[in-house]
Parts: sequence; C-alpha cells; structure tokens
Amino acid sequence: MYANSGYNKCPKLEVIYLNVDTLISARWVIPVEPANKVLENQSIAIKDGKIAGILPNEKAKLKFRPAKQYQLDDHVIIPGLINAHTHAAMSLFRGMADDLPLMEWLNDHIWPAEQKLVSQEFVEDGTRLAVAEMIRSGTTCFADMYFFPDVAATVASDAGIRSVIGLIIIDFPSAWARDADEYLLKAGQVHHKFRNTPLVKTAFAPHSPYVVSEQSLRQINTLAEEMDIPIHMHVHETTDEINQSLEQYGKRPLQRLDELGLLSPRLLAVHMTQLEPAEIDLIAHYGVNVVHCPESNLKLASGFCPVGKLQANGINVALGTDGAASNNDLDMIGEMHRAALLGKGVANDCGAVKAFTALEMSTINAAKALGLQDMIGSIRKGKQADLIAIDLSELESQPLHDPVSQIVYSANRNQVSDVWVAGKQLLKSRELLTINENQVKLSAIKWREKF
Amino acid sequence: MYANSGYNKCPKLEVIYLNVDTLISARWVIPVEPANKVLENQSIAIKDGKIAGILPNEKAKLKFRPAKQYQLDDHVIIPGLINAHTHAAMSLFRGMADDLPLMEWLNDHIWPAEQKLVSQEFVEDGTRLAVAEMIRSGTTCFADMYFFPDVAATVASDAGIRSVIGLIIIDFPSAWARDADEYLLKAGQVHHKFRNTPLVKTAFAPHSPYVVSEQSLRQINTLAEEMDIPIHMHVHETTDEINQSLEQYGKRPLQRLDELGLLSPRLLAVHMTQLEPAEIDLIAHYGVNVVHCPESNLKLASGFCPVGKLQANGINVALGTDGAASNNDLDMIGEMHRAALLGKGVANDCGAVKAFTALEMSTINAAKALGLQDMIGSIRKGKQADLIAIDLSELESQPLHDPVSQIVYSANRNQVSDVWVAGKQLLKSRELLTINENQVKLSAIKWREKF
Repeated sequence: MYANSGYNKCPKLEVIYLNVDTLISARWVIPVEPANKVLENQSIAIKDGKIAGILPNEKAKLKFRPAKQYQLDDHVIIPGLINAHTHAAMSLFRGMADDLPLMEWLNDHIWPAEQKLVSQEFVEDGTRLAVAEMIRSGTTCFADMYFFPDVAATVASDAGIRSVIGLIIIDFPSAWARDADEYLLKAGQVHHKFRNTPLVKTAFAPHSPYVVSEQSLRQINTLAEEMDIPIHMHVHETTDEINQSLEQYGKRPLQRLDELGLLSPRLLAVHMTQLEPAEIDLIAHYGVNVVHCPESNLKLASGFCPVGKLQANGINVALGTDGAASNNDLDMIGEMHRAALLGKGVANDCGAVKAFTALEMSTINAAKALGLQDMIGSIRKGKQADLIAIDLSELESQPLHDPVSQIVYSANRNQVSDVWVAGKQLLKSRELLTINENQVKLSAIKWREKF
Repeated sequence: MYANSGYNKCPKLEVIYLNVDTLISARWVIPVEPANKVLENQSIAIKDGKIAGILPNEKAKLKFRPAKQYQLDDHVIIPGLINAHTHAAMSLFRGMADDLPLMEWLNDHIWPAEQKLVSQEFVEDGTRLAVAEMIRSGTTCFADMYFFPDVAATVASDAGIRSVIGLIIIDFPSAWARDADEYLLKAGQVHHKFRNTPLVKTAFAPHSPYVVSEQSLRQINTLAEEMDIPIHMHVHETTDEINQSLEQYGKRPLQRLDELGLLSPRLLAVHMTQLEPAEIDLIAHYGVNVVHCPESNLKLASGFCPVGKLQANGINVALGTDGAASNNDLDMIGEMHRAALLGKGVANDCGAVKAFTALEMSTINAAKALGLQDMIGSIRKGKQADLIAIDLSELESQPLHDPVSQIVYSANRNQVSDVWVAGKQLLKSRELLTINENQVKLSAIKWREKF
C-alpha cells in the first residue's frame, strides 16, 4: 500500500552505503592518538587493509556495508602492540638456563647452544613459535635481531604479522656469515629481497658497540641513511659494557657512538640501563629512541633504565620484550604492566609511567622509533588496520572503572581475543588462523630433544 | 576354566587396595619439600582431606582404589599458593584510582571511598570477588587484613578456601568499630566464633606502628601469645613512615617494635622496603617473618625490599599481593614472577631469588610465617590436600626444559586448571565450583555504579 510512496518525495531518506571489508563494533576504542581518549560504543571500518573510518556504532551501521562484521560488546579495541626489540628465534631457548650470572649464562649456555644449533631450520621453527606467541598476546609488529633474517622475514610475512627485520652485523662468525664483509653483503641482499614485501621492513642491527668494529659502524651509518632505515642496537645494557669500553677506548660507548655520528632519530638504543645526566641530555639532543626491556633487565640484573627521567626529558621510549631466553615470554601485555610498575619504583614516583604512557610506549612510541608512525601505532583513518581486541568481561577485570587501567594493570595475554594486521584477521576468539598451533608445539618438543 | 585356581596357590598376587577419596595422577609433581625436586609421572592420593600418599602412577593405581580419579597428562601439581598479605574486600577498588602520589591516593580516593562505602555488604561482595579471583589463580590460603573480618571469614569458609583472618586493630573509627577497646573486643569475639571452623585461622592485624597506640600493641602482644596466633602488620613500608616515626618518637618503627617486645617468629612484617643493615641483623636474630609485596611496592613507589639480602641472612620471606587497589590483581602466579625478577634487579645478581625460591616464598615460607607449616605449604603425606594443577601444554610454555622455570617465568594465571583445598575441588578445568561467577561479576558492576 505504502510501497515506494515515500522515497520519491523525501530524498533525504535515501541512504548511500560505503562498501567496506570489515566493520568492528566494540564497547570501547582507545585510538592512542589523540592521547588519553577512551571512545565508547564505536565502530572501526576497514577497507583494503586500512582504517576507513571510526564512528559511533549506530552511525557506522548506517554508513558502512561491510563484507564481515564483528560485534564485541565486552571488548576494548586498541592499536596492535609493537614489540620494539626481540630475538624471535630464541624462543626455542626459553627456560633452558635461568638464574645464572650473565657471563656464565652466555658463555656456558646460550653461545654454545647457538654454535651447535642455530641454522635456517632453527630460525624458521623458533620464529614461528615466537610469532604464534606474539599474535596470541596482541603483538602485530615486531623489531627482530637474529641470524638468518631472511628466514625470519619469510616466516613472519607468511603468518601475516608485520616485522622490522634486523640486518644483523656482528664481529664473529656464525652459520649466517663468516666475517664483517659477508654480514654487510647479506644485509644488503636481505633488504633488497624484501623491499616490496608489504609486511616486511628492515633495519640495520649491529649487535652492540662492543662486538662491531668502528669501520663497520661507519659503513652501517652511511648505508642506513642511503636506504632510509633505522639502526637497531644494544647500547649501555650493563656496567660491564661500560667498564670494558672505558678500558679499551678510554670512553663510554655512547661517546663512541656520538663520535661515529650514530646518534640520531634513526637509532633505536636498546636497554640503556646505565645513563649519566649528560648522556640523557645527549640522546635528548639527538632525538635518539630508547627501547626499554624491563623484564630482561630485571632477569639478567642488568640495571634499571630511568624511563621516567627520559620521558621527562622528551625522549621517545618504546617497549620490547627482548628474546624469550632472558624474559621468558614475548608478551607485550605483560611487558606494559612491568614497565608501568617498575617505572614508578625506579623514579620513586607513583605518577611516573602512567597506564596510558605504557600503552603509548607499546604502540605509537614504537612506531615513531621505527619510522612507521604514519602507517601504524594508533587508530586513525588512513593508517593500516593493525588492531587487537581485549575481552574485559573476566572477573579479574571487575569492577571496570577505567579500561586503560584494566589493560595495563589487570589484564593478561589470555584476554586478547582477536587480532588483525592490515585488516586480515590472524587470531579469532583466541584461535590462530594463519599458524598451525599443534605443529608449532610439536616442533618445539623436537628441538628440546635435540638440546 | 582357570577360575580361582591361581589365587589360593600364590597369595602374593592378592592385591589389597586402600580406599581413598581422590587420586590425582600428573605428569609432574613438585612437592616443594624436599627442595628442588621435580617428580615425574606421580600420583597423589587424598583421604579425609589429607594427603594419603605420593607414588609413581603405576604403583598408585595398584595400591589405591579412589572414589574420584584425575589424569592430568600435561600438568604439574604444586602445593596451593598462599597469599601472605591481602585486603580481599578492596578488590572492589581495583583500578579506581591509579598513578597518583601515595598520600593523594589515600586521602582523596581510598579513605573517602572507604568512609562512604565500607559495610558488611561491601566486605561480603568484595571478599567473594577476591576469593573467586584467588581460586582462579591457584591461591588456596590467604592472610587477610580488613574491616568486618567475621564476614570475610564466612565468605572464605563458604567458598572452601583456607584463610588466616586478620583481627584488625587501628586507631580510628570505622563502620566496624568505634575505638581501640571495641576493636580489641571484636577481635576476641571473631577469634572465638571461628575457633572450630576448619578452614579459618586468625591473626592479630594491628594495621601499622603509626596508627596503633603503644598500649594496644602491648595488649595485642600478650593476647597473641596467649591465643598462640600470629601478628600481621605493615612495617617499614615507606620512607615517610620512617621519617614520621623519627620525628614523633625519635626512633625508627622497628626499634619501637623491639622495645615493645613485638619482634618474634610470631610477627609477619609486611613490606619492609626500608631496612638498614643493623635492622636486618635484628629481624634475623628474632626470627621475624617478612612478607614481600613486589607489585604493590612498585606501584606505590614505596621502595625496594632487599629480598636477596634477607634470604642470605636466613630470614624467612613470604609473598603477598597486597590489596587489589594497589596491585591491581590478586594473582600469586604473577607475584612469583615479579618477585623472582625484581629480586635479581634489586640484588644486582641474576642468581638471586631463583625460580624455586619464588615458589617456596609462595608456599612453605608463607606456611611457616603463619605457623601452619605442619598443615600446609608442601605436598607431604599427612598434610592437608591443598593442591593446584597448572597446565603446561600451551605454546607459551614450550619448549619445556624445566617445569619450575615455566611456572615462575612463563606461565600465567589462566594456566591454573584445577584447585583443591582440604581435598575438596574448588576449580575444575577453570570452572569455579563453589562460587557463582556470574553473580560475582554482577555484584561488582553494582558496586561500580555506587562509586
């Protein structure tokens, strides 16, 4: 009776839908940019791997026609977490040797095991185990540093996780390369091979100032500028490193790096537990990024990174797990918790490293450190759809006064329910979609038997 | 054809079974006593709430005829965890106010909220939420300190968890008591009321040296000896506490407690972040127990308890979560991890607070501190069957070189699959059997709305 009668008269009622691939409607969305915002009942539309829009649930349903739709009524959506420092394949060394002095741990356990076991197959299986664990705990991008970086890049890309693969340079022979020249040669080859792989970026990864020659460091610096990629390096991890450098060169490692021209926004200086006030000024001046690894620093008794002080000086601090051999997990949800707690203890200030700051360290700060801030690190229209959902319905998250507090101080990795990278779902209600979980476990058992 | 023919001739083949209530067969059992033992493929028999025997799986099946049987092929059984310091009902304050300076947190948030909200109903609902969370994370006994201890004792006992209920004494009026006399009177009444309740023990809980008068402390000391119960108190939590005591009494709190005769193996001194070498000697001399709360100490920036040093001096150190308002969880699996990591960082020694030590701190050390070492804290024939199973089949626990390392450094609360207290199962494959989980969540939501 009324058919068609109204529409012609009232063109305002004509709704034009925008076709999108995915629409995720959630109880809360924390975009990270702008800071300290918690949006309620919002939907994120995804098209061609990118965020096409963020709108209140009701409006989004009128505007978008999605191929896939998710209704997450108990969940908070945050940007995928970025692990700014790890050695993924070392997950196979998890729990192999704990509670030992650092040099005994390295000399008698880790290095002999690496000498004996590290191969293409080891890196393949170890990286896959690591990637599975990272996806299950909400990490959507990781900055890696290990041998056979080409293998790690392939495993990561195949699993659909984003990676910044470290082009390892170290002054001793390994199964990957014989000498400095071969490491540099292979670095260039790996960079070239993956230059068009969408989820893979590269960074130079000279291990540390004490195992890479000054000549190599100079070459890396020039090449990194030419290739426009970051430099990812362990710096000032322990007092031993400082003392050895003072003995050998008469100066602290940061001074050497300064003289070599390596201090710049291109540098990710990992650990940084030993810092004098003038050194904090120096890295603030040059815009060096610090990657803080609280669990590894504690477990190896390396010292305390003064995160609160660095942030008060405007230094960009990202967060990393380090490898599973010294952590012993690759769980960024847990790492945020430890960073927020330890940061307060070390600063002697309850207000240091607030919950939201820890979330920034694991998302936008890491993106900035890696030079990827226009692509990832926050939920903004046009950025890649790297997103995770955290279920806050568990009783451990009650009462829920503030989702940010619950994520950082109370949630754990098991509450990560869903993960998307570039719009593709990798975890669905805790089930891995791109990795065969059982196969990963069986391969870890096989490696344990080889040890 | 052969019926009955053999048995008469060969009496050795006659098998006499022992009837037991439960038989738990597991891949690993860590009894904690003796130290550093990991038993493989063992079964624990339970009769009348106690451990009736521990035998290899095959032998156990020949010896015991159980009413109930569990086959846990991927699991490790350890003694139930003992949370040696909490304020259970404060779980309702979880995440209400974070990242604030201590005095602002107390004066502007926690104390006003307590003034406004704390009641019998608050303690009932808050304690039930806490108990649910504790059971789900493997805690089988907790030492509590809060108002309405009778309510907490009833909730805990009804849920089947063991508790050491703090008989709170504090020099300011609350909904529980008007003045010192009434606190003391009610302490005696609560102790009397629960003296025959199997799962409930009591301890005096004078809040701290700064809010309990010397007269009350003297009375408590005499009564605790008469009643043969522990004294559970915050001691040397912050530098403010020390400075205030120096100003008011011209001495540090530990010296006052010494002069009042309170230093003894009966005392659980909680926090102890401020300790001079002579004070470590003092508490070692008197056999005082220290309760370490690493997460709370970090979150409130209270200082660092020198756990490694205390243990090197033979001092018994137990572990506690503190209340959820300053933690923000009641998860002893996580607390072990933080204790083991922070202990190394603070001692500047990778070998401090080893994984097994963290496990002892959460089991036998806590049992000793509470005077319950003959009853709980390890898996030994004749002790109460307070046991938990942890599932180590997750990929985050692979490869599995050492179950102790995996429990402390890699596992999380979600891997706690089953929990028994005095032989009664409280958690079965992660499902709470004695608490209605949904009701607990709804009540937390109701309280949030009241805030």
